[in-house]
Amino acid sequence: MAKLTLAIDAMGGDRGPSIVVAALIRALQSFPEVDFILTGDEPRLKALLNREAKHLKATDRARIRIHHTTQIVQMDDKPSQCLRHKTDSSMRIAIDLIAEGDAQACVSAGNTGALMAMAYLRLKVLPGVLRPALIAPIPNEQGGQSLLLDLGANPQCDADTLFQFGVMGSVIAQELTGISEPRIALLNMGTEEIKGPDVVKQAALLLANSKHVHYQGFIEGSDLFAGKADVIVCDGFTGNIALKSCEGMARMVYDHLKRSLKSHWLSRALVWLLYRRQRKAWSWLNPDQYNGASLIGLRGVVVKSHGNASANAFYSAIEHAIAEAESDLPKRIHDRVEQVLSEQHT
Amino acid sequence: MAKLTLAIDAMGGDRGPSIVVAALIRALQSFPEVDFILTGDEPRLKALLNREAKHLKATDRARIRIHHTTQIVQMDDKPSQCLRHKTDSSMRIAIDLIAEGDAQACVSAGNTGALMAMAYLRLKVLPGVLRPALIAPIPNEQGGQSLLLDLGANPQCDADTLFQFGVMGSVIAQELTGISEPRIALLNMGTEEIKGPDVVKQAALLLANSKHVHYQGFIEGSDLFAGKADVIVCDGFTGNIALKSCEGMARMVYDHLKRSLKSHWLSRALVWLLYRRQRKAWSWLNPDQYNGASLIGLRGVVVKSHGNASANAFYSAIEHAIAEAESDLPKRIHDRVEQVLSEQHT
Repeated sequence: MAKLTLAIDAMGGDRGPSIVVAALIRALQSFPEVDFILTGDEPRLKALLNREAKHLKATDRARIRIHHTTQIVQMDDKPSQCLRHKTDSSMRIAIDLIAEGDAQACVSAGNTGALMAMAYLRLKVLPGVLRPALIAPIPNEQGGQSLLLDLGANPQCDADTLFQFGVMGSVIAQELTGISEPRIALLNMGTEEIKGPDVVKQAALLLANSKHVHYQGFIEGSDLFAGKADVIVCDGFTGNIALKSCEGMARMVYDHLKRSLKSHWLSRALVWLLYRRQRKAWSWLNPDQYNGASLIGLRGVVVKSHGNASANAFYSAIEHAIAEAESDLPKRIHDRVEQVLSEQHT
Repeated sequence: MAKLTLAIDAMGGDRGPSIVVAALIRALQSFPEVDFILTGDEPRLKALLNREAKHLKATDRARIRIHHTTQIVQMDDKPSQCLRHKTDSSMRIAIDLIAEGDAQACVSAGNTGALMAMAYLRLKVLPGVLRPALIAPIPNEQGGQSLLLDLGANPQCDADTLFQFGVMGSVIAQELTGISEPRIALLNMGTEEIKGPDVVKQAALLLANSKHVHYQGFIEGSDLFAGKADVIVCDGFTGNIALKSCEGMARMVYDHLKRSLKSHWLSRALVWLLYRRQRKAWSWLNPDQYNGASLIGLRGVVVKSHGNASANAFYSAIEHAIAEAESDLPKRIHDRVEQVLSEQHT
């Protein structure tokens, strides 16, 4: 395939461009075939690169271009306002680069609503796709991963949209994690068919009657990490709250554990020993590797990084974006959705 | 006040009546002023009591009555079916005892939907209350508790209902946890006013404009345990999924921690050391003490225990029910709701 170019919104995250540049420098080494365009304040980015990237080979340095932009999308900007008034923002230009064919994918750690609105406007949804969705991997108790969508692109969804999320999620599980027959489940407040809001019950019927997805039924929040499904479908409000509540719970337990382990010299010593022995055993729980939610259903690859992502976490988002662009995910999703629709109409 | 009688559905939980009886025996000691009625299979309960309660003083034994019932509500029974066909179930009779004034409160570990439907039918909602709600305490990082509602009684809610949940939650925080001005927050997918479903935004306006609640604004799932609010309001679908997802996350981390700590003698030593030093420091995270979700807004006290609660957890549910009955919670909620309504109409 043609040489890949990734656009990166360098001004997006809470931590500013320095973590973006640190992640980029790492990506230059891992992806020698990929070019990068940073969108943002050129003087500032130049200065950063001159300081951080001076050890780079000239050939690698040459794979980084800077596209100067004059505006920044703030976390509390209204998406509608951004569409009208932030047309020269680092986020908007990163998406424009895809729309104009100068890049195949982009990564941003900025305002999700604005990113969604801009991508929706400039990249357009794929034919037959009802709504784009945010999808991300979560760890499971088997030591593997499950995909969860929607994570906030659509606060409210109808049954057809939830059904299509199942179809799109199924494609991604096949393309990116290589599962031949991904198990699809709907997140619900109970596993019995009588449970939950009407829209979830209606989506269950659509999924159960489709031969394009391997539908497992409902799963409860308590099984979100049980590995009972490869793709877990819900609306964006539910997905956002489920995932962030778990972050909150994990943080609470982690902080408490840290405090109590530090409370005694002997435990500090033991923790140090254990850490050396068990770093690997715990690595699958490291949130960094799960950073990067993909906005799917559009004519282009858009990956949203967590707002306060570390350099390692932002690097994971870059990896996601490159993997999706390399497997030409938009085309795969388009083909499957077309197939489903055509067979529904016959 | 008059002597309190608590009805207990002895057949409800997944683990059967033995844990109920174990919890009851403990409650007999802690609440010498309370009488208890067990509803369920009399021969079986008699046999259990004869075995487990033989050490009891005759005066304590005399405070336990058994009300024989012939049916059991199953976890997957349809609520509507139960209303018609399970009129002699241990769950139904426990609620009837309140309706007929023979008990002031009941506890059941059975099918939530059926419990809700039966309580709704037999106890009726308080005048002015739109919908009953399930509310339960959750731990927070300050080492205190917050109240979360609705936990599943109402999969979908309109803005007025969410507003009223804020009012009822406020009363409970005052009555049971003694906070003079409880901070009320709405669970949402962002803290900016533009975020979230329309119904949540509308509820925010109602809460912000009411002088009966101390409204804090939106909180995200990531702050569910941050102690930023005393009462956190959402619809029953969202609450159920948020809480159960956190259970799932906690179980995954706990199991992994246990495995990795058992893997080396050093870590086993560490656990032993910490356990001896820090049992207290961790006790606030013990889920048992949070067992017991209260069905509020009805003319009577109904507490739902977790289906697979241990004896200690079921005991906590009994404690909740007695505390609510002793503070005459239904009357307090009624008074406040009346007050809010009257001032809305003037």
